[in-house]
Amino acid sequence: MRLAQALFAPRAVALIGASGDPGKNTARPQRYLRKHGYAGRIVPINATRDEVLGERAYRRLAEAPGDVDHAFIMVEDVEAALEDCARKGVVVASIYSNGFADAGAAGAERQARLVERSHALGVRLLGPNSMGVIDLPGRLALTVNAVLEADALPAGSTSLVSQSGTMLGTLLSRGAARGLGYAKLVSIGNEADLAVGELVELLVADSDTKVIALFLETVRDAERLARAARKAHAAGKPIVAYKLGRSALGEQLARSHTGALAGTDVALDAFFLDCGIVRVDMLESLIEIAPLLRDREPAGLKRQARVAVVTTTGGGAAAVVDRLGLHGMELGSMHDLTMAGNAQGYRATLESLLTSADCDAVLAAVGSSAQFHPEFAVEPIVTARRTAKPLVAFLTPHAERSLALLAERGVPAFRTPEACADSLAAFFAWRAPRPKPEMGDSHQFHSDPFAMLASLGIPVVERAIVQAPHFAHALSYPVALKRLGVEHKTEQGGVVLNIRDGAELAQHARRMGDERLLVQRMERGLAEAIVGYRDDPVVGPLVLVGAGGTLAEIYKDFAVEMAPVSEPEALAMIERVKGLAVVRGYRNLPQGDAAALARAVAALSRLALIPGRPIREAEANPVIVKREGVVAVDALIALKE
Amino acid sequence: MRLAQALFAPRAVALIGASGDPGKNTARPQRYLRKHGYAGRIVPINATRDEVLGERAYRRLAEAPGDVDHAFIMVEDVEAALEDCARKGVVVASIYSNGFADAGAAGAERQARLVERSHALGVRLLGPNSMGVIDLPGRLALTVNAVLEADALPAGSTSLVSQSGTMLGTLLSRGAARGLGYAKLVSIGNEADLAVGELVELLVADSDTKVIALFLETVRDAERLARAARKAHAAGKPIVAYKLGRSALGEQLARSHTGALAGTDVALDAFFLDCGIVRVDMLESLIEIAPLLRDREPAGLKRQARVAVVTTTGGGAAAVVDRLGLHGMELGSMHDLTMAGNAQGYRATLESLLTSADCDAVLAAVGSSAQFHPEFAVEPIVTARRTAKPLVAFLTPHAERSLALLAERGVPAFRTPEACADSLAAFFAWRAPRPKPEMGDSHQFHSDPFAMLASLGIPVVERAIVQAPHFAHALSYPVALKRLGVEHKTEQGGVVLNIRDGAELAQHARRMGDERLLVQRMERGLAEAIVGYRDDPVVGPLVLVGAGGTLAEIYKDFAVEMAPVSEPEALAMIERVKGLAVVRGYRNLPQGDAAALARAVAALSRLALIPGRPIREAEANPVIVKREGVVAVDALIALKE
Repeated sequence: MRLAQALFAPRAVALIGASGDPGKNTARPQRYLRKHGYAGRIVPINATRDEVLGERAYRRLAEAPGDVDHAFIMVEDVEAALEDCARKGVVVASIYSNGFADAGAAGAERQARLVERSHALGVRLLGPNSMGVIDLPGRLALTVNAVLEADALPAGSTSLVSQSGTMLGTLLSRGAARGLGYAKLVSIGNEADLAVGELVELLVADSDTKVIALFLETVRDAERLARAARKAHAAGKPIVAYKLGRSALGEQLARSHTGALAGTDVALDAFFLDCGIVRVDMLESLIEIAPLLRDREPAGLKRQARVAVVTTTGGGAAAVVDRLGLHGMELGSMHDLTMAGNAQGYRATLESLLTSADCDAVLAAVGSSAQFHPEFAVEPIVTARRTAKPLVAFLTPHAERSLALLAERGVPAFRTPEACADSLAAFFAWRAPRPKPEMGDSHQFHSDPFAMLASLGIPVVERAIVQAPHFAHALSYPVALKRLGVEHKTEQGGVVLNIRDGAELAQHARRMGDERLLVQRMERGLAEAIVGYRDDPVVGPLVLVGAGGTLAEIYKDFAVEMAPVSEPEALAMIERVKGLAVVRGYRNLPQGDAAALARAVAALSRLALIPGRPIREAEANPVIVKREGVVAVDALIALKE
Repeated sequence: MRLAQALFAPRAVALIGASGDPGKNTARPQRYLRKHGYAGRIVPINATRDEVLGERAYRRLAEAPGDVDHAFIMVEDVEAALEDCARKGVVVASIYSNGFADAGAAGAERQARLVERSHALGVRLLGPNSMGVIDLPGRLALTVNAVLEADALPAGSTSLVSQSGTMLGTLLSRGAARGLGYAKLVSIGNEADLAVGELVELLVADSDTKVIALFLETVRDAERLARAARKAHAAGKPIVAYKLGRSALGEQLARSHTGALAGTDVALDAFFLDCGIVRVDMLESLIEIAPLLRDREPAGLKRQARVAVVTTTGGGAAAVVDRLGLHGMELGSMHDLTMAGNAQGYRATLESLLTSADCDAVLAAVGSSAQFHPEFAVEPIVTARRTAKPLVAFLTPHAERSLALLAERGVPAFRTPEACADSLAAFFAWRAPRPKPEMGDSHQFHSDPFAMLASLGIPVVERAIVQAPHFAHALSYPVALKRLGVEHKTEQGGVVLNIRDGAELAQHARRMGDERLLVQRMERGLAEAIVGYRDDPVVGPLVLVGAGGTLAEIYKDFAVEMAPVSEPEALAMIERVKGLAVVRGYRNLPQGDAAALARAVAALSRLALIPGRPIREAEANPVIVKREGVVAVDALIALKE
């Protein structure tokens, strides 16, 4: 772990471009290292001074005595600094300077050259555009982030990797205010070399780290991150991510802000779920969820989660229960207690719920006593005998002291009903990393969409190409007539359905005016579905099943998973699509063949197994779902460029 | 305003059941009144003591000297205390005691008797089950709420009416922590007599109150609240509500908690929108939105709101912009500035945006400087020349001092990106109270659904009753055959569509086996809609338009407004229904007759104008929307019991 040591516990740090003006950002690392008690050697490098902030400084790194493990580069000429680092035997250089991939195409080229050179020289890079590294238990504050102006910051067991340098400070500051500390914090910058996945691997091996939190604007190394996440799971270290870009607006902004290709949010959801990363929706959840995840496994419920609530404040409990309901959770039971003189009874209630089979989590909603009598208010909560089942607290008043007491004792505590419900929902949505299904060999590749579907074992509609002037075919009526090679046929008048006989067919065919047309047997069923496959440029192959017609588009009514999926997994996806209610049995309507649809979804997902993955996108739409069986009525395939 | 004075500024207060044990809840009002400097006389009433907490006490109210304006009743025998109050000429009695409508059917009866008696005696009631009244500028702390343990609480211009006594303390406490104070706060309890609507009227007349905040578990007096809201609007005092029961789970809980009939959440949304009440989704928004609403009018935008963002922290701004996008807002422009040494430029940017036509609000996202240099960080924001356009701040770190400075200067400031976006969304969704449309006279009433629709001017399908054995009729084919008086016909096999001739009709009719059947002309169109009317027991008559078939139900895809609505209002409703995209023109598909559908919606909404409103529910479903015109194919009416 030479890299980890150089990154987090360097024996000596060079500050290349350290300023002697304490008001400048470039003076901060030196000030913060001293302020927070860094035990190693600090080597300020300043082109024009021999002394910086009262310490011996050097004009060039080469002039400094002794070994240097880690350099923090703050100068414009990053390239020259990198050469100096290599000559000095520096293991890792953190680069604060920007003007690389964060600065358009020219910057991106500059970054590519820098990385290439760093590989040649054998120096690892953090950044560029990184605010640095903090190790609170290790007393390393190698950063320009102003949050280190704080006199003391609580150490904890959560480590953070952040693609935003300023948000690193935000999370540290907000956590500190409620007693939730951090172990290591890394501002990863442009990820030119060291990227999130590799950092997660380092944190998996770090004994101070029990929970890994990610603040993400994009994902640049999905495959490595997925592998790292599986290692983290094996090591019992949960990973939680807050990712910008839930909205189209945020996605667009993240793209312009990071210069990276942003995956669609739904693809990332599937990715996180697939590799066992918990995803939170609210910013403060990223802080507050850590004690809920620590030392826990995914609950793996096959039904809605049930939360039991113990409360001394009806309104406060109702506010959080209402929110739980919005996230699809259920109320296990509600216990309205008076706290005064009843700590024993309160604790007994908590303990009995913690061992009961009737709930999956216990929530204590605490009222005004949390503000004025913190020790008293949280006493029964922190002393209740713990079980594997989560016990969490929501405090209704402004009560930082109570939050800190709960944090100290490892009880997850939430400042708002919304973050409380968001975190519990994220916890219950958490899955263990999904084992790759055993799918046998990959398939032969066909560029004809129907042939491709058929070779995967997906039933396709009977069809024939007909030619003017007779438009003859051997299909039985009724049939549908379609123009060939026209997208959005329905809107273009390129489709006629329910043609009853040859005369009608000829009449419509002549009106369309094409020499060659497609005739398909009319298929009727109980519902229409869309089954899709996409090799996402960010996260890789995905499979989708959604409600047919325009529903998937209008209502965003689809389920997406990383491909391939097994048939039982495909069936679980179908369960999540509202518009496929009829396939699952809706009211007394006849029920569609969900198993056959699941077979089609699993089959299409096998496109991910074709060597070289030549297919960018494939779609069977609509797939007609019958009482028995399904049939794909239209299909398309798009190859990668 | 004798009532207002007695409630908020009583010359003397009787504390009936005041305890001499300072640890008891019933000792609190006396302690808090003294602690917070109440200037009037305090009259403790205690059946067994002549002295309470060092003050002269009386065994009975009758024995106390002087006039008493306001009594606070904490004893079990509320009924006897009420008689004492009446004899003493007490104007208003606040009742802390519970065991009334909060305690089942027997309690509800007890409450009804108490109210009847209070009317006879001429004493107004607050509660029962009320935690009391607070007037911060007036130094009245007539409450048992422990939040008054705080040594000082900031006075402000927001007044709060809360159906939850404990949440009153929660809001006061959280507001105080960030410098957002209150004027008057009322725990309204069971609302046996004084209810939210009347309280709002009192606050409209209160010169200290500029914004009225409501924490609601239910609505008990919708009509009066609607009238009060219109008065508040006329007086330039915005009202903002947080209401529990967004989820079915929360709704159920609110019902059991308050003993009141809870309206469905969608009905309440329509109600709030109709009478100009802003609704927020998140608890802290109820606190933080107040400065955004103060002295402002609804923006009245006919398009998505555009927010310009000025920031020193890319990640922080992105977090809030992402959230704005989720609420359907757009980014006007993004200005990435450095604050250091650039306060002048920062302010100039804000001022130019505040007068620009390119955005509807300006958001300043402030980074770590807010934590360590509050005056410096908020200076350009608080000194920027204000316009009618909102200028709001989001602070990324934990920065209470900066929040307080912004609050002091009246700048809306938000602690979380989520509450910031929620509040801006609520602000832009805010409408002025809707004038009742000029709809002419009410209509004649028919109990036959089709006749009722026809008399309203809604086109209905041609139909005939046919009889065995010949099932003769004069409609032209194709027709539909339906069983009479069967609900969920489709699922019960009680409908056959597309019957082509008399022979086919007779065959199906015989299979159904009924003597009398309904034949309707087959109607084809571009889309199906549902148009509904419901006289909601909580908020009154509502009209609904939604996507047809099962879509309205599966996707909750409908728009609801208070009835009646005008045709332009109905058209705006249709705009909000995703599944009616085809009616508005979707891709290149032929466009449906939205105007005709709007006419049908407006027509059905006129059921609200029938004297006595005998109809509980009416529905035209499906309504077939054609290129020209619409036609109702099925209909139902349910009368009130």
